[in-house]
Amino acid sequence: MTIERLLATDDLPDGTVRALLDRAAELKQRPGAGDELAGRVLGLVFMNPSLRTRASFEVAMLRHGGHAITIEPGRGVWGFETRVGVTMDGDAAEHVFEAAGVLGRYVDALGVRAFAAGESWAEAREDRVIRQFAERAGVPLVNMESARRHPCQGLADALTLRERLGEPAGRRFVLAWAWHPKPLPTAVPVSASIAAARLGMEVVIARPPGWDLDPDDMAAIGSVAARAGGSVQVTDDLDEAVAGAHAVYAKSWGRLDLFGRPEEEAAARAGLRDWRITAERMERTAGGRGAFLHCLPVRRNVVVDDAVLDGPWSAVLDQAENRLHVQRAVLLAMLGGDGP
Amino acid sequence: MTIERLLATDDLPDGTVRALLDRAAELKQRPGAGDELAGRVLGLVFMNPSLRTRASFEVAMLRHGGHAITIEPGRGVWGFETRVGVTMDGDAAEHVFEAAGVLGRYVDALGVRAFAAGESWAEAREDRVIRQFAERAGVPLVNMESARRHPCQGLADALTLRERLGEPAGRRFVLAWAWHPKPLPTAVPVSASIAAARLGMEVVIARPPGWDLDPDDMAAIGSVAARAGGSVQVTDDLDEAVAGAHAVYAKSWGRLDLFGRPEEEAAARAGLRDWRITAERMERTAGGRGAFLHCLPVRRNVVVDDAVLDGPWSAVLDQAENRLHVQRAVLLAMLGGDGP
Amino acid sequence: MTIERLLATDDLPDGTVRALLDRAAELKQRPGAGDELAGRVLGLVFMNPSLRTRASFEVAMLRHGGHAITIEPGRGVWGFETRVGVTMDGDAAEHVFEAAGVLGRYVDALGVRAFAAGESWAEAREDRVIRQFAERAGVPLVNMESARRHPCQGLADALTLRERLGEPAGRRFVLAWAWHPKPLPTAVPVSASIAAARLGMEVVIARPPGWDLDPDDMAAIGSVAARAGGSVQVTDDLDEAVAGAHAVYAKSWGRLDLFGRPEEEAAARAGLRDWRITAERMERTAGGRGAFLHCLPVRRNVVVDDAVLDGPWSAVLDQAENRLHVQRAVLLAMLGGDGP
Repeated sequence: MTIERLLATDDLPDGTVRALLDRAAELKQRPGAGDELAGRVLGLVFMNPSLRTRASFEVAMLRHGGHAITIEPGRGVWGFETRVGVTMDGDAAEHVFEAAGVLGRYVDALGVRAFAAGESWAEAREDRVIRQFAERAGVPLVNMESARRHPCQGLADALTLRERLGEPAGRRFVLAWAWHPKPLPTAVPVSASIAAARLGMEVVIARPPGWDLDPDDMAAIGSVAARAGGSVQVTDDLDEAVAGAHAVYAKSWGRLDLFGRPEEEAAARAGLRDWRITAERMERTAGGRGAFLHCLPVRRNVVVDDAVLDGPWSAVLDQAENRLHVQRAVLLAMLGGDGP
Repeated sequence: MTIERLLATDDLPDGTVRALLDRAAELKQRPGAGDELAGRVLGLVFMNPSLRTRASFEVAMLRHGGHAITIEPGRGVWGFETRVGVTMDGDAAEHVFEAAGVLGRYVDALGVRAFAAGESWAEAREDRVIRQFAERAGVPLVNMESARRHPCQGLADALTLRERLGEPAGRRFVLAWAWHPKPLPTAVPVSASIAAARLGMEVVIARPPGWDLDPDDMAAIGSVAARAGGSVQVTDDLDEAVAGAHAVYAKSWGRLDLFGRPEEEAAARAGLRDWRITAERMERTAGGRGAFLHCLPVRRNVVVDDAVLDGPWSAVLDQAENRLHVQRAVLLAMLGGDGP
Repeated sequence: MTIERLLATDDLPDGTVRALLDRAAELKQRPGAGDELAGRVLGLVFMNPSLRTRASFEVAMLRHGGHAITIEPGRGVWGFETRVGVTMDGDAAEHVFEAAGVLGRYVDALGVRAFAAGESWAEAREDRVIRQFAERAGVPLVNMESARRHPCQGLADALTLRERLGEPAGRRFVLAWAWHPKPLPTAVPVSASIAAARLGMEVVIARPPGWDLDPDDMAAIGSVAARAGGSVQVTDDLDEAVAGAHAVYAKSWGRLDLFGRPEEEAAARAGLRDWRITAERMERTAGGRGAFLHCLPVRRNVVVDDAVLDGPWSAVLDQAENRLHVQRAVLLAMLGGDGP
């Protein structure tokens, strides 16, 4: 299995996703790994902060004898321009075109994180930074979370669902919108839903009216679900959604029609603090033992109660650990000559 | 010798400290070391800035074939919540519980730096961040300076005292409070005093009235001293203290009863700028050749004069170098199968 | 070939520069390199931000089995004092004397970046930070850009000129000042001119009246040119300069007589926005095919037009890549036992 570019898991054939998950599960049994990536260098570019992603990619390379270098533009390094044809007399001192071209000359592969940015969702949804990087870098590239997708999170979510549920096909997966003090990106809820859909699960997206995901992303989830024999539904009744669910994935995101207008978004959100996963809600899942998932970081007692995170339902540390193992599988497929 | 956790040297048996110091001295003779830590990854978490600690831990791992990854919450990464049971709708987006749990899944051991923080010393002295990390990480952990202790500095201080004095037992060690424009933490003066006490030295703490160390920490120093046949005294006469001293350890720290009230502390401190180590004071040490120690960074001509730092008394670069060697010994005892 | 210290290429014998360039060209053919630097650690100290320099030095070490650690004072680490004899009761908590001395105890060699700083060019031109580091570190040191020189950039520029021009001697090299919203340092234009002069090129410095380089630096360029059989001229006619040129090196820099007075400098600069490299200007170079060089980061359509950067003239990515290869050559000569 060889991967040249990982921008979104929905780009990948089902067989490739299955193979990556199998490989990740196998690698998880071998923590002290090998030297398949000896001499290989992965460049990690973070336009936004990171704990899990940075640590898990760095460790993934080290466990196989390789190394990662980390670039954090706008902290130690100047921010990047992404507009095409612009006269760069503002703040940005470098265009992504040059940054990507240069880094591609130094490293064997790149990881790039660039959250949604811009004045409107119409602009942000173009995912310009990651697309320009992919276009200009000239080396394999992995998306470490863009405006639209977080494929490594989706793969880790899928591995966790397989671990917890055995055979997830036909089981109910609830993506549960949660109140949060800030409008957050939609890359994770979309990627998690694609992951569950690909496993053939019954995907239920519970969110307040108005907090719909991008229609193209909904279509992508639906298309993956259709291929895998699953389904996608949307509801505004969280309590009904979690009843009998096998997995509850809590996640907040901002209203896309109020993107870039955080004060209006906050006003619309007021009164929705009950969109929170409590022990009572988890008790109503299948057998009272549904799995609780979240990509982390998570605000305790805001998105989910202490009792859930510290209780038997929580799979959040497994999810985070699985980031490491799916990324090991991805990097071996990109750089390690994993064949065929 | 195996170490699972290094929060404070006063937790360690005397024999373990002696063995660590012997091992560090031996490692110092072998700069290009080996591959005892090949494949091992140390995670370094800095809630506060660092030069020596970060560089010396990273190099310590590299010298033995291992690697360190560095996490700086609040810079590239969101700050951490430490309160238990709180509703996290403020600034912090992640609780230490998750951060520690996740990092423990990625790395073989963790180092954590978290200075005193909070509104009062009563709160800060609980050392919540490092204790929560130790509780939740599930891997060996080393304190890289907390509110109460800086054990690696203490070990480096002990090694330096042994190098300079041969047999330190019975010699006089002066911890000399110094004026400084800001109130600094007490972890270093406490840890250095414990180190000297453990070597059986006559420990003299010279500080202005009011700048007393925490009573529990004084008790810890006293208890170590009693076991080692040394002693602890407190004085407010710096000149008398340094007369005949074999080692003078300059260090500023803030008044604990004014913790969290920096303006009042500054007012109380006004007029104490003569609490500074000068060449004249060093000339009055034993044989005019007492050792001058400081953990660095140091403010020249504020805490100590140029003439001392650039003169024959100064052991500060040896102390800093010894950080590297004691940490090599600690990490080999934690991760390298150094036994028994 | 052994190098103990690389502060400026004009300090190096012509033969050493030639040998470094030959070695870099040879290393460029061997991307996955070897273990000549196994067990060696390079410390990188950045007082100013960096993308290319940090990434290329880190990768240079990794490609030969070594490692780099990165220190960014003033970000994770306190800023450094550089004045001698000062009472350090201001912001800086550490003097370069201690920082250099300590880091020299941890690593096998140091790289230091410290741009021009201070109230006047008279002060900045002393290059105190890098000189104090060199004096106190006690290990080999490489300048990663100081107020006066950027030797690794100069070496990369020279390698690029050799690649593009075959035999550069006697060809025309134009250093073309460009308008830029901020006053930038002169280390790059000086180092690039020294590089071209050393290749025996006809160096033409095109800049508006008033934007002269430091007289001592002009003398250094002239002296290298004289030795190599080249020449140096200064003009204020950019169009005439580029006509028939074989290489055009665009670079902005600030007026030295207005150093530290950015508003006055900006006022003097107003009206000079036509000092920009356009496709029309590149069409007038030798055969319409002159090479375009820039050290990056570059502001598109401010310093140079999109059509040039994305056209056949541009050598900027080669230049950036060559940073990696010349630094591999430098590091092998410093740390790898490259002989004789």
